[in-house]
Amino acid sequence: MTQYWTDLVNRLTPYTPGEQRSGSDVVKLNTNENPYPPSELVLQAIADVSPDSLRRYPDPQSSELRKTLAGYHNVTADQVFVGNGSDEILALAFMAFFKGKAPLQFPEISYSFYPVYCDLLNITPHMIPLNSDFTLPLTQLGGKCGGIVFPNPNAPTAIAVNKSDIEKLLQNNTSTVVLIDEAYADFGAESVIDLIDRYPNLVVSRTYSKGRSMAGLRLGAAFASAELIEGLRRVKDSFNSYPVDAVAQAAGIASMGDETYYRETIKKIIATREHTTELLKAQGYRVLPSAANFIFVSPPDRDAARLFAELNKEDILVRYWNNDQLKHWLRITIGTDSEMKQLMAVLNKLHSHG
Amino acid sequence: MTQYWTDLVNRLTPYTPGEQRSGSDVVKLNTNENPYPPSELVLQAIADVSPDSLRRYPDPQSSELRKTLAGYHNVTADQVFVGNGSDEILALAFMAFFKGKAPLQFPEISYSFYPVYCDLLNITPHMIPLNSDFTLPLTQLGGKCGGIVFPNPNAPTAIAVNKSDIEKLLQNNTSTVVLIDEAYADFGAESVIDLIDRYPNLVVSRTYSKGRSMAGLRLGAAFASAELIEGLRRVKDSFNSYPVDAVAQAAGIASMGDETYYRETIKKIIATREHTTELLKAQGYRVLPSAANFIFVSPPDRDAARLFAELNKEDILVRYWNNDQLKHWLRITIGTDSEMKQLMAVLNKLHSHG
Repeated sequence: MTQYWTDLVNRLTPYTPGEQRSGSDVVKLNTNENPYPPSELVLQAIADVSPDSLRRYPDPQSSELRKTLAGYHNVTADQVFVGNGSDEILALAFMAFFKGKAPLQFPEISYSFYPVYCDLLNITPHMIPLNSDFTLPLTQLGGKCGGIVFPNPNAPTAIAVNKSDIEKLLQNNTSTVVLIDEAYADFGAESVIDLIDRYPNLVVSRTYSKGRSMAGLRLGAAFASAELIEGLRRVKDSFNSYPVDAVAQAAGIASMGDETYYRETIKKIIATREHTTELLKAQGYRVLPSAANFIFVSPPDRDAARLFAELNKEDILVRYWNNDQLKHWLRITIGTDSEMKQLMAVLNKLHSHG
Repeated sequence: MTQYWTDLVNRLTPYTPGEQRSGSDVVKLNTNENPYPPSELVLQAIADVSPDSLRRYPDPQSSELRKTLAGYHNVTADQVFVGNGSDEILALAFMAFFKGKAPLQFPEISYSFYPVYCDLLNITPHMIPLNSDFTLPLTQLGGKCGGIVFPNPNAPTAIAVNKSDIEKLLQNNTSTVVLIDEAYADFGAESVIDLIDRYPNLVVSRTYSKGRSMAGLRLGAAFASAELIEGLRRVKDSFNSYPVDAVAQAAGIASMGDETYYRETIKKIIATREHTTELLKAQGYRVLPSAANFIFVSPPDRDAARLFAELNKEDILVRYWNNDQLKHWLRITIGTDSEMKQLMAVLNKLHSHG
């Protein structure tokens, strides 16, 4: 700390993303990246970006991209907002809908950036414990609060809730914003984007990092009533007018034009996930039912810390949280079949030596 | 406004960027874009971005890019911070160094995003009037305040201050952060980046939008003591871990490797600026001395509003602020010689009819 920092900086405990180690031997299953490249149409769109669109400012409102996403999701362009990844969208949404209000409800085990935003923006967190089977107690959310946020499927548990249950929550909570973070919804959860016309307090956030394989390009979106989108825009235009660059806008548009390709890659990831789950269960692992591109697993001896370290030594990166609630668990991203084979081979080796 | 917005959103008056009209007949001199494309090395770096670096998260700390910028400016990598354009860097810096402190000093006529950040972050602005010749009264800055920020050269006046005068200000103000916004410094102002080792409260922000022709890619940087950079990083990692995408990181690195090209384009812009200034002065315009890639001009009849509208009708876009202090002035970006010829031709036509 220094005399020049604000009190805010002194109080912050920043979010820690997973390690970005590289190298051809590394099996990287720690940041929920898609193992398959983006569509050829995306690569072409990037190659086609003109020198003029590099030297000029991008469209600050990303109008063409928003129109494309609106068409895809059958909503109107004024119901769509885009940003520099869904993390930026969540930060702006916390400012637009939750800051200065009553405590914000979210699951105790959930995306670990939520409490960080609360800290940054002086929002009181009200964390709701999960059920003992790690499912979300949806009926315990709501009531007197400043808003509700949770991922569907949840992270890092990978467990999804039903659309009908979310709709009940919306019917019972009309006075504050309900933000559903659908970062991983492409891999099995039911989207609630089509409910935004009926619930003026519903915001759905999305990322193009996972299902669309573009984590490197930083693109996220939010879907909500035009009024809520206008709230997001006002905050964005008071923070950074042009968060989505020209390349990301072009790539985002292109990515929505190759549905066949993405459906195939998502299908492959789901098949690999189910196969890996079976193999791990056969070895005595506990594996939570996943609707995401990752699985949340606990080894037979529950010593996840040791397993994390041993995998790390073998250049297999997975995610581990050293806290009381999660210390017996690892989050493993679903890679290609070949990467998962490497993982299983190392696990077999470790267990035969253990 | 809606019941779902926070008080913050209701109170905001967002920043308004210049119009991004496109079309082959439009002469766009309203957002200070560089009329020349980025270096071929940048175009090549973008074409070379691999599918793997698109599907993966970018390096959250942009280490290679920061090392490259550090080498270029003869500082260390821990004295460099990068972000999604210098607007994002300014927003993060206001959070890291000014929020919750005493009133922040900046010139009354200056970058119009500063008061917007103050509004967003609840910082009290203390605006210092310019001298009657639009120069910055540097000796009136400082004293009891929560910090100081100004662009050098200033915007939209284009007038620069001397490095020695900034150094005096730093010597007299050691208790709060002094943020020098060098967005346009490539076009004539003396940089103070080399003072960061001597003044632990100095932050210098830079953009690669102007001098490096990459407004479309959103890349900015800040230079300061390692402690201040750490403050920026803490705020960034509490807001958005990956603001600089893989393409922008690669392009930024490439852009620092073609000094000859950029020196030439900057030289051309300066020559065009000086020539345009002479022509306008010969027509009776008042033109402030510019150290930037734009000029601040007042027409002979002082009716800048009418001239703005007439130029707009002719598809020549310039910037006009409809407020008491700036209403007699237009900000005109320096384009190519051919674009400035088109501007002069329209001005001649308008004056011969007027």
